[in-house]
Amino acid sequence: MTFNTFGKIFSYTSFGESHGKAIGVVVDGVPAGLKLGEEDIQKDLDRRRPGQSEVTTQRQEDDKVEILSGVFEGKTTGMPVALIIFNKDAQSKDYSSIKDLYRPGHADYTYQQKFGIRDYKGGGRSSARETAMRVAVGAIAKKFLKEKGVSIFGFTREVAGIRAEKIDLKVIENNSVRAPDLQAAKEMEKVILAAKENGDSVGGIVEVVAKGVPVGLGEPIYYKLDSKLAEALMSINAVKGVEIGSGFSSTKMKGSEHNDEPYIVKGKVKFKTNNAGGIIGGISNGDDVVARIAIKPASSIVKEQKTVDRKGKSLKVSVAGRHDPCLCPRAVPVAEAMMAIVLMDMYLIAKTRKI
Amino acid sequence: MTFNTFGKIFSYTSFGESHGKAIGVVVDGVPAGLKLGEEDIQKDLDRRRPGQSEVTTQRQEDDKVEILSGVFEGKTTGMPVALIIFNKDAQSKDYSSIKDLYRPGHADYTYQQKFGIRDYKGGGRSSARETAMRVAVGAIAKKFLKEKGVSIFGFTREVAGIRAEKIDLKVIENNSVRAPDLQAAKEMEKVILAAKENGDSVGGIVEVVAKGVPVGLGEPIYYKLDSKLAEALMSINAVKGVEIGSGFSSTKMKGSEHNDEPYIVKGKVKFKTNNAGGIIGGISNGDDVVARIAIKPASSIVKEQKTVDRKGKSLKVSVAGRHDPCLCPRAVPVAEAMMAIVLMDMYLIAKTRKI
Amino acid sequence: MTFNTFGKIFSYTSFGESHGKAIGVVVDGVPAGLKLGEEDIQKDLDRRRPGQSEVTTQRQEDDKVEILSGVFEGKTTGMPVALIIFNKDAQSKDYSSIKDLYRPGHADYTYQQKFGIRDYKGGGRSSARETAMRVAVGAIAKKFLKEKGVSIFGFTREVAGIRAEKIDLKVIENNSVRAPDLQAAKEMEKVILAAKENGDSVGGIVEVVAKGVPVGLGEPIYYKLDSKLAEALMSINAVKGVEIGSGFSSTKMKGSEHNDEPYIVKGKVKFKTNNAGGIIGGISNGDDVVARIAIKPASSIVKEQKTVDRKGKSLKVSVAGRHDPCLCPRAVPVAEAMMAIVLMDMYLIAKTRKI
Amino acid sequence: MTFNTFGKIFSYTSFGESHGKAIGVVVDGVPAGLKLGEEDIQKDLDRRRPGQSEVTTQRQEDDKVEILSGVFEGKTTGMPVALIIFNKDAQSKDYSSIKDLYRPGHADYTYQQKFGIRDYKGGGRSSARETAMRVAVGAIAKKFLKEKGVSIFGFTREVAGIRAEKIDLKVIENNSVRAPDLQAAKEMEKVILAAKENGDSVGGIVEVVAKGVPVGLGEPIYYKLDSKLAEALMSINAVKGVEIGSGFSSTKMKGSEHNDEPYIVKGKVKFKTNNAGGIIGGISNGDDVVARIAIKPASSIVKEQKTVDRKGKSLKVSVAGRHDPCLCPRAVPVAEAMMAIVLMDMYLIAKTRKI
Repeated sequence: MTFNTFGKIFSYTSFGESHGKAIGVVVDGVPAGLKLGEEDIQKDLDRRRPGQSEVTTQRQEDDKVEILSGVFEGKTTGMPVALIIFNKDAQSKDYSSIKDLYRPGHADYTYQQKFGIRDYKGGGRSSARETAMRVAVGAIAKKFLKEKGVSIFGFTREVAGIRAEKIDLKVIENNSVRAPDLQAAKEMEKVILAAKENGDSVGGIVEVVAKGVPVGLGEPIYYKLDSKLAEALMSINAVKGVEIGSGFSSTKMKGSEHNDEPYIVKGKVKFKTNNAGGIIGGISNGDDVVARIAIKPASSIVKEQKTVDRKGKSLKVSVAGRHDPCLCPRAVPVAEAMMAIVLMDMYLIAKTRKI
Repeated sequence: MTFNTFGKIFSYTSFGESHGKAIGVVVDGVPAGLKLGEEDIQKDLDRRRPGQSEVTTQRQEDDKVEILSGVFEGKTTGMPVALIIFNKDAQSKDYSSIKDLYRPGHADYTYQQKFGIRDYKGGGRSSARETAMRVAVGAIAKKFLKEKGVSIFGFTREVAGIRAEKIDLKVIENNSVRAPDLQAAKEMEKVILAAKENGDSVGGIVEVVAKGVPVGLGEPIYYKLDSKLAEALMSINAVKGVEIGSGFSSTKMKGSEHNDEPYIVKGKVKFKTNNAGGIIGGISNGDDVVARIAIKPASSIVKEQKTVDRKGKSLKVSVAGRHDPCLCPRAVPVAEAMMAIVLMDMYLIAKTRKI
Repeated sequence: MTFNTFGKIFSYTSFGESHGKAIGVVVDGVPAGLKLGEEDIQKDLDRRRPGQSEVTTQRQEDDKVEILSGVFEGKTTGMPVALIIFNKDAQSKDYSSIKDLYRPGHADYTYQQKFGIRDYKGGGRSSARETAMRVAVGAIAKKFLKEKGVSIFGFTREVAGIRAEKIDLKVIENNSVRAPDLQAAKEMEKVILAAKENGDSVGGIVEVVAKGVPVGLGEPIYYKLDSKLAEALMSINAVKGVEIGSGFSSTKMKGSEHNDEPYIVKGKVKFKTNNAGGIIGGISNGDDVVARIAIKPASSIVKEQKTVDRKGKSLKVSVAGRHDPCLCPRAVPVAEAMMAIVLMDMYLIAKTRKI
Repeated sequence: MTFNTFGKIFSYTSFGESHGKAIGVVVDGVPAGLKLGEEDIQKDLDRRRPGQSEVTTQRQEDDKVEILSGVFEGKTTGMPVALIIFNKDAQSKDYSSIKDLYRPGHADYTYQQKFGIRDYKGGGRSSARETAMRVAVGAIAKKFLKEKGVSIFGFTREVAGIRAEKIDLKVIENNSVRAPDLQAAKEMEKVILAAKENGDSVGGIVEVVAKGVPVGLGEPIYYKLDSKLAEALMSINAVKGVEIGSGFSSTKMKGSEHNDEPYIVKGKVKFKTNNAGGIIGGISNGDDVVARIAIKPASSIVKEQKTVDRKGKSLKVSVAGRHDPCLCPRAVPVAEAMMAIVLMDMYLIAKTRKI
């Protein structure tokens, strides 16, 4: 627990800074007997890693994960699974110019004020590099959930107001923005590259969906599926909003429109619509679990901005370097991971709730 | 901990069903020496209690709170503060007709499936009656925070798309919808009463703001101020979305617009804008902490709806009774409470983070 | 969680002071579907309550427990089970003389120094009155465990060095000290009454045993069955030591003597001896789980003692009133309760540990 | 949290198996600003490492610790401190003969039954090799506590019934058993070597003392200093009992003897005796905190023993190899570490308990 741990039964504790020796994670509560290899994890890490396309950062990290414990003869043993990625592209440059600088939109100021000290190299612990470990943990959760019939996928729903209206799962991994709509993808890519060209960045919306979730995951009142998803997703860097199902659009609906009508199919309860986003009263109802996150435009931009430094001096800054002009494409696997982690934890907990 | 507890150092565990004997809460981690009386708590409970106006439910509960422990000679002792409210308006009616019914939009189905048993009286534990205890705990947190210079207020920002554009704090408690804009309040009231007339309900947006929050509350990476706020607010009944600061609107902004420009006033760092909603990297930056929640239209409506029951029978239902046609006015003190609880917990934790 | 909660999945949070309005507890994580009534709980409370015999305190409390939530039509619903006992024999006397007094062996001094304030009536929260709630929670755990084939019993093993050598379960509840050996019981009673006569008190050892515990309860490395038992038992008032199985006597044995020899009976592993106390590597091995606790002589004695008060004045004190001259008889159900609570929590957790 | 984490604010999560790639730990809640280097940690690891003398195992591990995160320019940053030790002397031998064997006194059987799979190499996760990480974490806690005026030391109090009667701190690190009494040390060494010669092992008692602990550490009712010490110490491999202060000897005392008499020195409360072991009501009273642990004779012995294997076959086994004939000397730094960890956590928590 404390501050770098997430989850109750299936839980993990991450560590490491952007430009430190390594980043890593200890995953606890993994049930014994799950087949697991480094390749299971690497697959998703490759979807998050930098340098995938022109719309992502050019930082060079191959992000090769290593399993240090908890797996024996190809299966989990019930012991903590520790994972590590050694940082390659780190500590090479001279940081003296940014040492005292408060980059606009970054956590430099709050970390410095709170702790009186901060690792200023590449943002230290506040860097989104930490999300690699979320993806790694999420890969374990996905593997587990798959055995239980649950699958998870995410995609970029909007970039700079451009919306993917069609949902074609097959195309998601075939375009640089991970949109499920090739037409929208092209426009999104265009607006991202235009921003990049201009030394600027754009925001967007990522959507995550879990299919095959059994009825009954989530616990009243303070371990609800939706509230834990909200926490999990809001903890991702650059996220400013989370919604479930109808989300903010529900506020413009009538009760008679919003209530999902239950009906019976082969003796089972189904719902005509899914405004609930698969969750009622904090508990999964068997429908798709649907969440959406608002991702702000990346704070690191080349465009010159005014700011101040630690000594109270005003100055101008251009955050040069290799940054993502739009965070959505690489946020997709991270959001999937967080949903998988929450669902796996809820799944295990649900086993304890009936006599 | 487990399932009905929220918070790490300042934490609470609530209990009770809508039509059971009592609802209550045990508040732990309250520092010793805080002046506290029942009147401190009652004040906020009166803002949440049913029957306040035509736009809220007419259920009759005076919601008189009693302190059972943890306060001695007018001050907290550091021991758990237990609070109780005995239910008055309960168990009076005949429930046989709704015993097996799955009310649309309600947790009847998910509770039944998950637990194999449920208290069907007034929604049991899934009823928003539990939020009375949040308000009670929040009142303690507000009292504590006030001594530290932090004040919290909430209001109805939107109802059915009608938006309060002006923020006049003085008028919030003077109109039935708790809007900060009297003109908008009138329109909101109108639309709510029209829905009510029509046996229907409407949704809306509630906004909460904390002023005077010191820099440094919130912990990287999994006890962030924003992620814990998201969890806290999403756990409130009927909430479908949470946003911080710019929220979903950030997704249409450029990085150069969104980054709040830091500048120096009397040696202190201030920000030209507050898109961050007072939080950077999960840590408060000294600006107002701002959160907004999407509240779906109430599920309980008189209008006839199709549904099914536990035996798989299709039927029609009109959820008669005393229900809120719009949940926003009474959600305002609940949302304030959750923000206060999170901030107090973070405040206490922050005391442990520097040598 | 925080400070007044115990357990991970099956957990409880207690509240209340010795002479306050009430003592109570919220029990969370109770699986749905367990038959439960107040009588199930009262039974064990009656074994702990004051005034049972000459060797226990004469305080008058009938300790009638009331279930406030979480039980519906005779069964648990999976919601928190709140229990309350209103204090009867409280607040009647004048406390001005003991207000500032530090009674020797009591927590008066440490509470005052730590919190700067304390409820001095009957010891406030530090009173062993809190253990009534442990017994109540333990009764729920015992009911659950009984359905799983696990039974728990405790007894007074030693008083003032007098040891029960015979273990005859039938006689335990038939003598005032709860010893399993009637001959020893008589001597124990004599030594207790002699101490009482003399205004003094004596200590002793209580033993608790769980039979029928399945193999596999307890989690490596920091949720071991033995370490959690140690915590649970050491948290009981007046306990100064805890041992499992061979305990301190193991320190005088050879490895070749101490190792319990495994052998096979009907295809199952059994052990020739039980020095392990039913636990190896923190996990139950199917044998009886055996724990013993050292209980110091009660601190409240009539015999005059030197002490100091809050103002630093030296004085003499005789702790008059109705106190237990030996805590063992009433500690037996408390120790049983703590073992039951730990085992039930471990039982539920074990359900989540294999795929 | 989950299963491999200990502590609330200052907490750690350990991982790794005896003969796996590495063992490690993530230490969370370390306050920012503490000077920390690998040498601070190595010092204590060297006191625990194998191969120190004839009375300890001859396994060859230099146990060089590496800091992976959370320290920047020689100081902690408030971020998690990850530590790692790569295993050197591992995986070299052929394990096929012990693969299915249940070594008497070891966790082989319980792990196998519980998880259905186990890493049988060197005991896997159940090996005391994990305690190296406790020592590493303890070194951080000791460093912190030292700045607060708290010092911790441990020693071997008894081996096979031979008791160190004198406490001379200077000699502890100068004899192979870490006894504080050179005369007793010689006898202890003799009895250990005799057991070793005979292919057997002996048990003993380790004592740990903290000096300079401020009044007020520990929280009522379920985060007591003594109950958390009991948990912490009982979780160490081979520990069968824990006692605080007078411990089991209290059971033979009268209340009038056992109560420590308070008196005033320079306006401060002191105690004439320390039967309390520095803790009253779960809270430190300013006196030395004293704990003792019973350590069973090591289970790994060369002497031939009967046992069974996974297939239910009876057989005889001689646990050859490099094992400790007495665990006490190497348990000393582990016990010190656990006490330091508990005290540091309590110290930080205490900061949050008064307004």
